[in-house]
Amino acid sequence: MSKLVEEFNAYRSKMNQKILDADNLVIKRIFNLDTNCYTEGALSVATKEMIALACSMVLRCDDCVRYHLGKCKELGLTTQEVFEVFAIANLIGGTIVIPHLRRAVEYWEALQENASS
Amino acid sequence: MSKLVEEFNAYRSKMNQKILDADNLVIKRIFNLDTNCYTEGALSVATKEMIALACSMVLRCDDCVRYHLGKCKELGLTTQEVFEVFAIANLIGGTIVIPHLRRAVEYWEALQENASS
Amino acid sequence: MSKLVEEFNAYRSKMNQKILDADNLVIKRIFNLDTNCYTEGALSVATKEMIALACSMVLRCDDCVRYHLGKCKELGLTTQEVFEVFAIANLIGGTIVIPHLRRAVEYWEALQENASS
Amino acid sequence: MSKLVEEFNAYRSKMNQKILDADNLVIKRIFNLDTNCYTEGALSVATKEMIALACSMVLRCDDCVRYHLGKCKELGLTTQEVFEVFAIANLIGGTIVIPHLRRAVEYWEALQENASS
Amino acid sequence: MSKLVEEFNAYRSKMNQKILDADNLVIKRIFNLDTNCYTEGALSVATKEMIALACSMVLRCDDCVRYHLGKCKELGLTTQEVFEVFAIANLIGGTIVIPHLRRAVEYWEALQENASS
Amino acid sequence: MSKLVEEFNAYRSKMNQKILDADNLVIKRIFNLDTNCYTEGALSVATKEMIALACSMVLRCDDCVRYHLGKCKELGLTTQEVFEVFAIANLIGGTIVIPHLRRAVEYWEALQENASS
Repeated sequence: MSKLVEEFNAYRSKMNQKILDADNLVIKRIFNLDTNCYTEGALSVATKEMIALACSMVLRCDDCVRYHLGKCKELGLTTQEVFEVFAIANLIGGTIVIPHLRRAVEYWEALQENASS
Repeated sequence: MSKLVEEFNAYRSKMNQKILDADNLVIKRIFNLDTNCYTEGALSVATKEMIALACSMVLRCDDCVRYHLGKCKELGLTTQEVFEVFAIANLIGGTIVIPHLRRAVEYWEALQENASS
Repeated sequence: MSKLVEEFNAYRSKMNQKILDADNLVIKRIFNLDTNCYTEGALSVATKEMIALACSMVLRCDDCVRYHLGKCKELGLTTQEVFEVFAIANLIGGTIVIPHLRRAVEYWEALQENASS
Repeated sequence: MSKLVEEFNAYRSKMNQKILDADNLVIKRIFNLDTNCYTEGALSVATKEMIALACSMVLRCDDCVRYHLGKCKELGLTTQEVFEVFAIANLIGGTIVIPHLRRAVEYWEALQENASS
Repeated sequence: MSKLVEEFNAYRSKMNQKILDADNLVIKRIFNLDTNCYTEGALSVATKEMIALACSMVLRCDDCVRYHLGKCKELGLTTQEVFEVFAIANLIGGTIVIPHLRRAVEYWEALQENASS
Repeated sequence: MSKLVEEFNAYRSKMNQKILDADNLVIKRIFNLDTNCYTEGALSVATKEMIALACSMVLRCDDCVRYHLGKCKELGLTTQEVFEVFAIANLIGGTIVIPHLRRAVEYWEALQENASS
C-alpha cells in the first residue's frame, strides 16, 4: 500500500479513537452523523461523495479531500470524473485552491498505485 | 413569477451586463468558464449543479445558492434531493451555515410557486 | 419589543419550522445537537454562549451573532463583558470583522431597549 | 450625493461612534491602527488602498469593498485600474466572489455619479 | 518536554523575534494588542483563552489552536472543559474542523505529558 | 539555492505538469488565466504581485504566499515594501494570519539567501 495513503489512514484512525474515548456527547454525535449522512438516499453514495469532495476542496482542507478521494476510489469513480469535480471546485473557489489541487492529484495517484499493487 | 426570484434574476442580469461592458479580459474569461464548466461531461449537468449548490452553501454565498437552486429547479430535481445536498453542506460547513439554509429554503419555495403559477 | 429583534426572531422561527417539516434526518439531528451543545456542562451556559458569539463573529455570520447576543442578554451578561468578546473576535478575525461589529452593536442596543420597555 | 453612498457613510459613522463610545481599549486601538496602516510609507496610499480593496473582495465583505472603493475614488483611480484589482480578486477568490463584484460595480457607479453631480 | 511542544514553541519564538526586528510599526502594534487583549478584565483570563481557542478552531489554524491550548494548560483547564470548547467549535464549524480536532487532541496529549514529566 | 525555495519550486512544477496532463479544459483555462492576469496592464506587474501576495495572506494559503513572494523578489521589491503588504494583510485578516506571517518571513529570508549566494 502507498505510504502516503497508509500513513493518512493510520493517523486518522488512531486520533479518531482517542477523540471518541474522550466521551464528549456532542462530538460523538457529530461523528455518528458523519457516517449516516453519506449512506444511499435520494442521492447515490457516489454523488454524495463527489459533493463532499468538492466542498472539502473549496474549504481547502487537505485531509478532508484525501478522505473523500479514498471513498471516490473505492466507489470506482474515474480520473476524468474526479477531475470534473476538481474543475468545479477550482472555478468556484479560485486559484487559492490550486495548491490543494496539487496535493489532491498526488494523493489520487497514490490511491491508483494502491489499487494496482 | 415570484417577486423574490424575479428581482434576483433582474439584478443579476443587469449587473452582469455592466461587468461585461467594462471589457476586462480576465473577468470576461472567468464568466465564460462559468458557462463552460457546467455543461454535460463525464458528470451529468444535474450532478454538477448539485456540487455547485453544496459548494455555494459551505462558502455561505446566498446569491450563489439562489442561482444554483434555480438551475436545480429547471433540471427537475426534487425537494428531497435538494435537502440531501443541504444536509451534506450543513454537516461539513457546520451550524454557521443554518442562516443560509433558511434563506435557501425560502428561495426554493419561491421557485416552486413560480413553477406552479 | 424592538422591531429589529422581533423580525429576526419571527423569520428564524418560521423558517426553522419549514426546515424541520422537510423531515431530513441529518438536518434534524444537527438542529437537535445545536440545542444540546449549549446546556450546562463542565462549562457554564454563559461561557458557552460567549464562545459561540465569538465564533459567529470571526466567521462573520450576522444572524448567528444576533442569535447568540440574544442568549447573552437573557443570561444577564453586561455590555462590558460582551465588548470583551467583541474585542477578542475583532483582534483574531481582523478589521474585516468591523462591519459585523457595527451590526452587532446595533442589535445589542435593540436588545437593551427591549429589556427596558 | 448618491443615496447608496450617503446611507453607507452615515450608518458607518454613526455606528463607529457608538463603538468608540463603549470605550473598549483593544477595539479602540484596532480602529487607530486602521487609520495608521493606510498612510504613505514605502508604498503609496493608492497601492495600499488597492491592496485593501482586493483583500476585502476575496474575503467577500461588501461594506469593506465599499469603504475602499470610496478611498480609491478619492485618490483618483480610474475604472480600468479598479477593474484590474477586481480581476485579480475574482481569479484568486473564484466565482464565489462574483455576487460581491456585482455589488462593487454598482457602488463604483454610484461613486462616479457622486463625483459628477 | 514533549518534542512536539518544544519545536512549536522554539519556531514560534524565533520567528516572532525576526518579525519584530523588521520594525514595522503596524505589525508591532498588532503583536502588542495580542498581549493586552488576553489579560484579566470583565472576563477572566481562562474565559478569554477558551474563546480564543474556539475561534482558532473554527478558523482552522493549527498553530493558533496549539498556542491557546498551551495557555489553557497553564491555566489548569481540565480535559473535559477543553473538549466542551472543541464540541462547540466542531458544531459551529462543521466536520471540516475534524482534522484540526485530531491535531489539537494530539497536542493536548503532548501538553499533558509535558506536565507530568 | 536555498533548499526551502528549491523544494517548493520543484514540487509545484512537477504537480502542475501532472495537472495539465490530465487535460481537463476548465482547469487548463484557469491555469492560463493565472498567467495572463499578472501581466502589465493599467497596473504594473509589481502592484499586481503585491495585491496577490496580500490576498494569499488573508486567505491564509502558505504556498500561494510563497509563490507571490518569489515573484516580488524577482521584481526587486524591498523588505520594507513586502512588510507593508504583510501589515495590511495582518490588520485586515487579524491575528489568525500571524502563523502564516511567520512562515512567510522564513521564506522571504530563504529568497534573500538565494539571491546573495
